[in-house]
Amino acid sequence: MDSPPIVFTTDFGLADPYVGIMKGVVLSINPGAALIDLTHQVSPQNVRQAAFVLGYSAPFFPPGSVHVVVVDPKVGTPRRALLLVSPRARFVAPDNGVLSYVVRDYLDSPPQQVGRVRIPRGLTAYSLTNSDYWLHPVSHTFHGRDIFAPVAAHLSLGISPESLGEQVEDMGWFPAPQPVVAANTILGEVVYIDIFGNLVSNIPAQALAEGNTAQVKIKGRLIPGLSRTFHDPSHLAADGLLALIGSHGHLEIAVRDGSAARLLGADVGEGVEVTVPPTA
Amino acid sequence: MDSPPIVFTTDFGLADPYVGIMKGVVLSINPGAALIDLTHQVSPQNVRQAAFVLGYSAPFFPPGSVHVVVVDPKVGTPRRALLLVSPRARFVAPDNGVLSYVVRDYLDSPPQQVGRVRIPRGLTAYSLTNSDYWLHPVSHTFHGRDIFAPVAAHLSLGISPESLGEQVEDMGWFPAPQPVVAANTILGEVVYIDIFGNLVSNIPAQALAEGNTAQVKIKGRLIPGLSRTFHDPSHLAADGLLALIGSHGHLEIAVRDGSAARLLGADVGEGVEVTVPPTA
Amino acid sequence: MDSPPIVFTTDFGLADPYVGIMKGVVLSINPGAALIDLTHQVSPQNVRQAAFVLGYSAPFFPPGSVHVVVVDPKVGTPRRALLLVSPRARFVAPDNGVLSYVVRDYLDSPPQQVGRVRIPRGLTAYSLTNSDYWLHPVSHTFHGRDIFAPVAAHLSLGISPESLGEQVEDMGWFPAPQPVVAANTILGEVVYIDIFGNLVSNIPAQALAEGNTAQVKIKGRLIPGLSRTFHDPSHLAADGLLALIGSHGHLEIAVRDGSAARLLGADVGEGVEVTVPPTA
Repeated sequence: MDSPPIVFTTDFGLADPYVGIMKGVVLSINPGAALIDLTHQVSPQNVRQAAFVLGYSAPFFPPGSVHVVVVDPKVGTPRRALLLVSPRARFVAPDNGVLSYVVRDYLDSPPQQVGRVRIPRGLTAYSLTNSDYWLHPVSHTFHGRDIFAPVAAHLSLGISPESLGEQVEDMGWFPAPQPVVAANTILGEVVYIDIFGNLVSNIPAQALAEGNTAQVKIKGRLIPGLSRTFHDPSHLAADGLLALIGSHGHLEIAVRDGSAARLLGADVGEGVEVTVPPTA
Repeated sequence: MDSPPIVFTTDFGLADPYVGIMKGVVLSINPGAALIDLTHQVSPQNVRQAAFVLGYSAPFFPPGSVHVVVVDPKVGTPRRALLLVSPRARFVAPDNGVLSYVVRDYLDSPPQQVGRVRIPRGLTAYSLTNSDYWLHPVSHTFHGRDIFAPVAAHLSLGISPESLGEQVEDMGWFPAPQPVVAANTILGEVVYIDIFGNLVSNIPAQALAEGNTAQVKIKGRLIPGLSRTFHDPSHLAADGLLALIGSHGHLEIAVRDGSAARLLGADVGEGVEVTVPPTA
Repeated sequence: MDSPPIVFTTDFGLADPYVGIMKGVVLSINPGAALIDLTHQVSPQNVRQAAFVLGYSAPFFPPGSVHVVVVDPKVGTPRRALLLVSPRARFVAPDNGVLSYVVRDYLDSPPQQVGRVRIPRGLTAYSLTNSDYWLHPVSHTFHGRDIFAPVAAHLSLGISPESLGEQVEDMGWFPAPQPVVAANTILGEVVYIDIFGNLVSNIPAQALAEGNTAQVKIKGRLIPGLSRTFHDPSHLAADGLLALIGSHGHLEIAVRDGSAARLLGADVGEGVEVTVPPTA
């Protein structure tokens, strides 16, 4: 019987041996573990970026997958180490809000402030306090190796969450930026920029009228409608700028054969305005 | 029984979660799949580079391997999604010529123009049209996740190619640049540059006379013979330039402890001339 | 029964298909092999860096792991290809000193000069000369593919070391820089810089007095004590410089939310001086 995959998301990069060492620790406990890299190139200590990437990606993994998330600026301080169990997956991570996008889907009314959130019905969370499942001696600076990796390995072998620590009632939280919908406009923002320079906004496909009638404004440029693909020439703005529904299911700004981020000098947080003509 | 490896070649890079997501999709279908990265750093949308890399590398993988190739500038347009079955491997890829090097070995007289090629005897090709084997909803921008990855996973589980779509008679093609052989000279060109700055030419080892008598010209520099290894000082030109038979089985231009690409300012397509003294 | 993991350490980078090809070669021999990347971003031909990384990382992998180390400036010359067997792991590598940190732990008095070292009691070493276990034809430039990968695959299947070549009595060696301990000072140096710009020294935790009384000097800056974590504000120098015991178990110089390497302009070899006040 295959054990569920262990999926890694870190800001460690691949130049140092840190990721490989975490895998060595896992295999020392579960020699048959399937190890998958989601990404190790989260911007250093960018907890929000990691949260977005994880929330978007986790649904594509098999039920029961064990996600190990190590973007952990406060490693070694008394911040909790957390296990979150959802009906679909397990998440081992520092308690710093990096699981916000994961829990958001289970919340009726997500808090609007940065702070803490009550664990919603359907999920359970644990503080990882049982050091029997850690690697010793535990360093102050590399809990990915000493706590998260061995705990994930034990989880993949079927150990119960209750064995790993005590249940907790809340966890760190930050709200995802929400688009503001007015009469015929939607005001959103860029929430992720990929390596191609595509600008992923927080405006979901469902918010947009059918067809290509929406106009998109970003950094003073006007994109005169939605394209279907990167290659579709139907609604290019000057400089090849285009807008489409991307694979994230959100409005995305791109440039054919180029980088929209570079062309526009846009960063995460940049405003995106969509104007939808009134429907009859 | 181990399922055959699924081998990925893309231009996605490793910073974004796209590669990890494709693997999650595969494992959701075949939890025991063995997943191998050939490279994810093909230059963006560089179909010819991907074709070269794939043609060179595929023979080193086990029989039955499933290659997933996602360098796909026209994703979302009506370009076909293709499955090519050879006696040694299966290839899942957009129909854009990226499999040209793979089929070339099976062709008696490869076409000299860019366009399409008839599937040669010994190979079969299919247009991937059966959406039962796709991930839904299918995006317009990420067929790697929605079509190629799930199809590869099903192939690795043993599903028949016929189930995935209808057989087709031709596929996209571009000819590989061929060296021109005259009296005592061979005129080739650089076809690949690796991360060390080594310049791999299209001049095969077999075209060269035994021994070190060949002289190599590139960008006006003369390399006075072939070396055996990067470390071999026997035939260095000024600046440490040397020529040898590389691991691709082709003539390669290198610099000891340096980058020939940087030293010469050479790019893919740069001419390489070999002069072989007349044999007795 | 799971076969032991095969762990790769190279300077090949991930842009070229070379690492993927080595894995294809392994899977062609052992289809069930578990393949782990330690790092492929050793600085080009930096044998000492690879040796440090390997010595630090290998203990975190399961017993019997097969390490493949390909940092091999002299590939194709008559330098030996080596198999080193320790009670914990197997190492397949060129005989160029890259295993120095691995053998050091078994030596009573490590040689102080660069050169060769006698294989210590408890370890055995073999010269890989039996070409039956290689991939043919063997290139002069890519023994990772043609010798090290196939040999590692056969090892992972249980073949005996004796089958692979004849036992040898010594191997390449360079001494690790040792800290110099005087009255109340320890004089060490930077031996590794990670991607975050943290400067790992050769001064082990045990050499330091308990508590935070040690003062650290580097490049003329004074760090007034040891911190516990990167986030600990207790002993910051100007510019956020801090010193702590890192996950390597050594004194490490860092900058909170920044790069100590960049801030100080420090490189490997930079001196680090620790002053420990006399204990009562």
